[in-house]
Amino acid sequence: MDQWWINGRAGRQVDITDRGFTYADGLFETVAIRAGAPRFLGLHLDRLLTGCGRLGIAVPTRASLAADLKASVRDIPYGVLKVFVTRGPGPRGYALPDRPAPTVAWGTGESRAQPSLPIEIRWCETMTSANPATAGLKSLGRLEQVLARAEWQQPEIAEGLMLSTEGQLVGGTASNVFLVAGDRLLTPGVNRSGIAGVMRRVVIEAALGAGIPVLETELSAADVRNATEVFLTNALTGIRPVRQLGPQRWATGPVTGQLCRLLFAAGVGECAGES
Amino acid sequence: MDQWWINGRAGRQVDITDRGFTYADGLFETVAIRAGAPRFLGLHLDRLLTGCGRLGIAVPTRASLAADLKASVRDIPYGVLKVFVTRGPGPRGYALPDRPAPTVAWGTGESRAQPSLPIEIRWCETMTSANPATAGLKSLGRLEQVLARAEWQQPEIAEGLMLSTEGQLVGGTASNVFLVAGDRLLTPGVNRSGIAGVMRRVVIEAALGAGIPVLETELSAADVRNATEVFLTNALTGIRPVRQLGPQRWATGPVTGQLCRLLFAAGVGECAGES
Repeated sequence: MDQWWINGRAGRQVDITDRGFTYADGLFETVAIRAGAPRFLGLHLDRLLTGCGRLGIAVPTRASLAADLKASVRDIPYGVLKVFVTRGPGPRGYALPDRPAPTVAWGTGESRAQPSLPIEIRWCETMTSANPATAGLKSLGRLEQVLARAEWQQPEIAEGLMLSTEGQLVGGTASNVFLVAGDRLLTPGVNRSGIAGVMRRVVIEAALGAGIPVLETELSAADVRNATEVFLTNALTGIRPVRQLGPQRWATGPVTGQLCRLLFAAGVGECAGES
Repeated sequence: MDQWWINGRAGRQVDITDRGFTYADGLFETVAIRAGAPRFLGLHLDRLLTGCGRLGIAVPTRASLAADLKASVRDIPYGVLKVFVTRGPGPRGYALPDRPAPTVAWGTGESRAQPSLPIEIRWCETMTSANPATAGLKSLGRLEQVLARAEWQQPEIAEGLMLSTEGQLVGGTASNVFLVAGDRLLTPGVNRSGIAGVMRRVVIEAALGAGIPVLETELSAADVRNATEVFLTNALTGIRPVRQLGPQRWATGPVTGQLCRLLFAAGVGECAGES
């Protein structure tokens, strides 16, 4: 990221007593910038502000936050916007501060446009926790994903799939996962583990709009093995078809191809060429 | 805290790309300062450096860290030392930085001496996750404890007990829990949930030294109900006997009293008056 703003001021320094640092008491969003605008900003703000509500963090004013974010990315043709909301600084101890002053911060940076090509992935040994209190939230507590991502260095492996401690498929370290089984699209629910991804939501809506049945449910490693198509989603990469997982290989199938075309038409330009 | 040091310099500003902030990719210690010295510093450093090893964070040099921490608290008669080690700043993404530069930070503050009197506690509805990858670590990811502590405001309730998502007793939001059953001392294991508390370790060693059998094991809410004595431990408060939990009341029993006397003799001055 090239430029940071913290509570409305240019800067990149956070107070060490900020509860985002001391307790992971906060949330973040990673937003694609396309042609000077934050893509799917409404969906990102929906998730961010819903999360603030769940955590009891005083919610930033949606309209002014949206306006500030849009202004910050206006001159960036293609890049990334990362937004943080934390409960702000506080005295030692888990109890909420008497008068919380949440921290709202964001950073922007340019990046290089590239299409989302089919990828090779692996299984991670590190599991994700299962906890309804934090499930679905994009909270700052991401140590499990860090440990999972540290399991491999090979550049040809683009992502790792994680199971929950309850044995359920959760998704990639930084992506949601979809499976095609029969004529249906399957994806893990996010009420016990995982993150309610924005691109996940976009794909679900696109599929439903195209008459493809979608099931958000409990899935296992066996469901991945039995799937006829597998793809990952992420706000920055759209749909990435999985072409290899260990010994198993997939061609990019018709459902994935159809969804890529639908997302391309909806402004997810990196979903080009998959058909 | 009154004074902060970050990477050897006085200051309290952390870079917003510090992975402690962005991903809870780090650890902390809360150490009692007594008579100008960090109490049980060796045990705190054991846990901190073991945790760094588990996370693959380049371990600070123990001797120099110990010397710096001791020097920082020399003029504080009674207070708190909080120490952080994170993986340091990094680019966006969970993958470890190519050349990590860990952040080592600490803060000191004075506090008021007070004996650890018997307390009233409650049950929390928020559960702790169960995950061997992070169990036992005092990681920066403490959102579950924050949410649990936010369940009550009544000042007469000193702590809340948490169960894991697997239904096992874990401990207080900011303490470990011990039960007396028959002639044995029971405490939850920390290999799936919870934190391997320093005062927990001190109590276990004191009990074993006094010939009291200690069992670190899976425990349930029913085990709490059936216990003849219950107490909580924390590095800053020593042993706090539980006198009330919902409708149930306990007097401070003989095992708790004996352990308080042993800890008092070992330098845990706040364990006075329990006999």
